[in-house]
Amino acid sequence: MSDVRDLSTPCAVLDLDVMQANIDRVADHATRLDVHLRPHLKTPKSLPVAERLLARQARGATVSTLLEAEYFADGGVRDLLYANPLVPAKVERFCALNDGAGEVIGITDSAAAAQALAERAASLGRVLPMLVEIDVDGYRAGVRPGSEEFEAMVGTLQASPALELRGIMSYAGVSYHTPPDDRAALAERHRKALVDCASALEARGLACPIRSFGSTPAFMRAASMKGITEVRGGIYVFQDLFQAGIEACNQSDIALTVATTVIGVQPSHNRVIVDAGGLALSKDRSTQGHPFDCRFGWVCDDTGAVLPDVWVEVVHQEMGVITHRLDAPLDFERLKIGTVLRVQPNHADMTAAAYEGYHLVRGGQVEGFWPRINGW
Amino acid sequence: MSDVRDLSTPCAVLDLDVMQANIDRVADHATRLDVHLRPHLKTPKSLPVAERLLARQARGATVSTLLEAEYFADGGVRDLLYANPLVPAKVERFCALNDGAGEVIGITDSAAAAQALAERAASLGRVLPMLVEIDVDGYRAGVRPGSEEFEAMVGTLQASPALELRGIMSYAGVSYHTPPDDRAALAERHRKALVDCASALEARGLACPIRSFGSTPAFMRAASMKGITEVRGGIYVFQDLFQAGIEACNQSDIALTVATTVIGVQPSHNRVIVDAGGLALSKDRSTQGHPFDCRFGWVCDDTGAVLPDVWVEVVHQEMGVITHRLDAPLDFERLKIGTVLRVQPNHADMTAAAYEGYHLVRGGQVEGFWPRINGW
Repeated sequence: MSDVRDLSTPCAVLDLDVMQANIDRVADHATRLDVHLRPHLKTPKSLPVAERLLARQARGATVSTLLEAEYFADGGVRDLLYANPLVPAKVERFCALNDGAGEVIGITDSAAAAQALAERAASLGRVLPMLVEIDVDGYRAGVRPGSEEFEAMVGTLQASPALELRGIMSYAGVSYHTPPDDRAALAERHRKALVDCASALEARGLACPIRSFGSTPAFMRAASMKGITEVRGGIYVFQDLFQAGIEACNQSDIALTVATTVIGVQPSHNRVIVDAGGLALSKDRSTQGHPFDCRFGWVCDDTGAVLPDVWVEVVHQEMGVITHRLDAPLDFERLKIGTVLRVQPNHADMTAAAYEGYHLVRGGQVEGFWPRINGW
Repeated sequence: MSDVRDLSTPCAVLDLDVMQANIDRVADHATRLDVHLRPHLKTPKSLPVAERLLARQARGATVSTLLEAEYFADGGVRDLLYANPLVPAKVERFCALNDGAGEVIGITDSAAAAQALAERAASLGRVLPMLVEIDVDGYRAGVRPGSEEFEAMVGTLQASPALELRGIMSYAGVSYHTPPDDRAALAERHRKALVDCASALEARGLACPIRSFGSTPAFMRAASMKGITEVRGGIYVFQDLFQAGIEACNQSDIALTVATTVIGVQPSHNRVIVDAGGLALSKDRSTQGHPFDCRFGWVCDDTGAVLPDVWVEVVHQEMGVITHRLDAPLDFERLKIGTVLRVQPNHADMTAAAYEGYHLVRGGQVEGFWPRINGW
């Protein structure tokens, strides 16, 4: 065991107790609503983290890239949903995954893509297990049930033995722009859209066993998941300042921080320079314009205790500039050359991607290291 | 040889001819001004790119992390400047580098840091070759010549046999906020500050053989580098939309792009979804608020030809949303499912860091792959 202050900085630090509480909070809600989770592993991209997620009320997992699918399948995760639209150029790699012990399901949200996939799969002599992504509120992807596009896509699915419909999904990402008290209604809108669409498809003879709901902030306000078979969510395992800003968590729920060292002290400018810059923190500015604007991250001491109103105001590639949000004098006694600090990130997904893994802490002590993967 | 359209996306694509023209342009200017370059390798982080940079009017190289120093030293680069303030916790790793065939010089910009470094080096029985960073315009780091802090630091350097002064440096990073026509005066201010400071130090018996000037946009407008021994610059090797926006290059000088595939088509929303999102492009928004605001990147076809006014307006983790800047209808005939596009980045340093290397292209043909390193 070593101390956070002995780590080579910058590096990613993961508080295990905070993470477990995050996992349990969402799993408990899923248990209450009698629905399974299909955790989205794009946030941690780490097998040991996945194992903790999959141990609680989960059935299968979600990934955002084929590299993640390969990594988690190698690690023994047997039921994966690759939740980005599949395109013909990626079909062979997708099929190779399905030659293994587990299964990976793809998604599609357009008639043209479905047709192209069917042709590619047929030419390879393969059958692709697929979900259809439906559009409920015009957010990003998906096709609106009942639309001309939807009908064309369903026609392709019915006509193509190379595509096997496994069900439907939606993503309530608009929850990030929806006030907390309106998220229950948002969740209900998606739940109902999924259930109605599945019923309509089944009435036409298309089995629809999977009805997959996405977005944790919406799910955590949902009163019912009746008719939904699984909930996809990811960021909750680490949480971050954006999630705190939209009241999807408390700031104390943030499990991932970046350890950094003071490398410059400038009392005449009332600022401190640290060795975590844009590459170490990411340039994500999700909190920009929010009431809880955190610039490039909130500063904590080496134990994870927040230094009130101290933030990373500016980042250069390998330097962060720490100032006081209200221009009050910094406490330079606590910010000497060599002091190790921890920075809460705006967006854990983006920040974690700078690292090869997580230094695990419990109560300020480092207990080990878990690897993660990056790339495509 | 293969075609850009056959690459597995997202991936980084480097146009070799454009890159070489960027290298030559800066080297030619350095030759005219009779000064050497010390190229900053934090942008490419790739040995083959470094070799092209070092082949033209260069003497030594600059790095921003000790990992870069180790990588390039292993690759045979013999004279490195580690241009982030050195702190005691990194002294052992720094010294290990100096046990190799080459030399790495550190920097310091405070009396407290210099004192702590001197003590650490003395306890290890080592002598650290150091530059002092001077502050010319209060931009980020450095200490103002003649200030109390400067005098204390010089006193420490004179009194500490464990620190060996090699010279001074400054960074004219304020050039990024200085109109092009004012950059000649900025460069002259830094040149004069460096020369005056070096003279003052030498008058006190402190040899100051290195006088290192930084910032390419300022350098490229400079009329003289008299008395300067080296110029540090990095981003010019790849260029990016921010550099184009401040008129430090033309958009056609951008050598680094991200290849991406259309995975969704939504004519009813006049938008297209690609497989390059925040992780593939970075969340850098350097161009935000500029007259040349490029959102998350400018879209080109697979040959690198710009699609006028087509940009990546929004990014999610693994998806980019392409729209038309002026809301004119997109040409969906050129943006079908599976189409490979290339996106020019806001900030090449940040975008390149998502990748393990560069696919090399000349005239649309892929000629090979050069690796790069990431991390710390």
